[in-house]
Amino acid sequence: MAVVFLTITPIGTATPSVSRYVAGVQRILQRSGLVHQLTAMGTIIEGDLDAILGVVREMHEAPFHEGAVRVSTLLKIDDRRDKEHSIARKMRSVEEKLGGPG
Amino acid sequence: MAVVFLTITPIGTATPSVSRYVAGVQRILQRSGLVHQLTAMGTIIEGDLDAILGVVREMHEAPFHEGAVRVSTLLKIDDRRDKEHSIARKMRSVEEKLGGPG
Amino acid sequence: MAVVFLTITPIGTATPSVSRYVAGVQRILQRSGLVHQLTAMGTIIEGDLDAILGVVREMHEAPFHEGAVRVSTLLKIDDRRDKEHSIARKMRSVEEKLGGPG
Amino acid sequence: MAVVFLTITPIGTATPSVSRYVAGVQRILQRSGLVHQLTAMGTIIEGDLDAILGVVREMHEAPFHEGAVRVSTLLKIDDRRDKEHSIARKMRSVEEKLGGPG
Repeated sequence: MAVVFLTITPIGTATPSVSRYVAGVQRILQRSGLVHQLTAMGTIIEGDLDAILGVVREMHEAPFHEGAVRVSTLLKIDDRRDKEHSIARKMRSVEEKLGGPG
Repeated sequence: MAVVFLTITPIGTATPSVSRYVAGVQRILQRSGLVHQLTAMGTIIEGDLDAILGVVREMHEAPFHEGAVRVSTLLKIDDRRDKEHSIARKMRSVEEKLGGPG
Repeated sequence: MAVVFLTITPIGTATPSVSRYVAGVQRILQRSGLVHQLTAMGTIIEGDLDAILGVVREMHEAPFHEGAVRVSTLLKIDDRRDKEHSIARKMRSVEEKLGGPG
Repeated sequence: MAVVFLTITPIGTATPSVSRYVAGVQRILQRSGLVHQLTAMGTIIEGDLDAILGVVREMHEAPFHEGAVRVSTLLKIDDRRDKEHSIARKMRSVEEKLGGPG
């Protein structure tokens, strides 16, 4: 199980508002069935790394279908194999430490 | 107003569990008073860019105080000046598009 | 043609020196035949995006084979389809502008 | 001493060619006197972290002066304090491993 952070940004779109493209990209992710979370700076996805990479490849393609000619994609993979690894577990782990004696 | 995404990772920590360091870093952010959101893959912060960079500089230093000798920090800045820019607004903008006719 | 920037970092390695892992990862890239350039902060690769992603997937796996239990991989894709796109062309483009009247 | 990787990208520029902006940003870096290396995917800078962050802050501002209204900046900091740390040393370290017995 991997957890990834993903941003997909069209470059040279004439307007600085790119949320139209973000929405197109998100629909592909929703259809994938992968557990994910939309944030203000990118999307977090958890699951089998190959499954994630397959969907990321499709998502990266989406802005081109809507007219973009250049796309900048940033992908950060956190892949951990010594214990269960998920969005929920990562959040819990930090929150437990934050609740501690400082 | 800028919105940033930040990860701070100690390298060479003997154990792959780095949430202890993440918690130390987060406490500095909490004391700063800046609006922020903790996610499973990093922290999102909004505010004046110079204020953010000042706090990021302190946060980056924290793992060294706890024994780390190498720290890898990733910072992604989204700085937009043609309209109000915040975590809440960015989320709303994408959600509106997602609710649209597809 | 895409150009990507890639870093692959094992987390929790006992020692902050991770160049042993970097070397293992680089050998996979060398065998791939893809045009690439090693820099002090990561590797730049050019080529067909699917070919690149296939090799990146293999490279990400390499540190696990050498004992790492957690790997953090950062991939930045610059994919441009309106004109020829390569490491050499991108460098030339900026250098031409730098040589200009400032 | 830190080594950083930096990309500064204007969003919504009408044209997908952003090398004009890259050149403006580079000139600020050249005037700073910091050791740096331009690559096809971003700029690598070495030096005192506070000195670097001061120049990065100026560089991030440059595209706004040339008309951009939104700028996306990515900064990756590699800060190591147990030994000498520089662009040259990092390159040598990997190259030595690559030359080894595989």
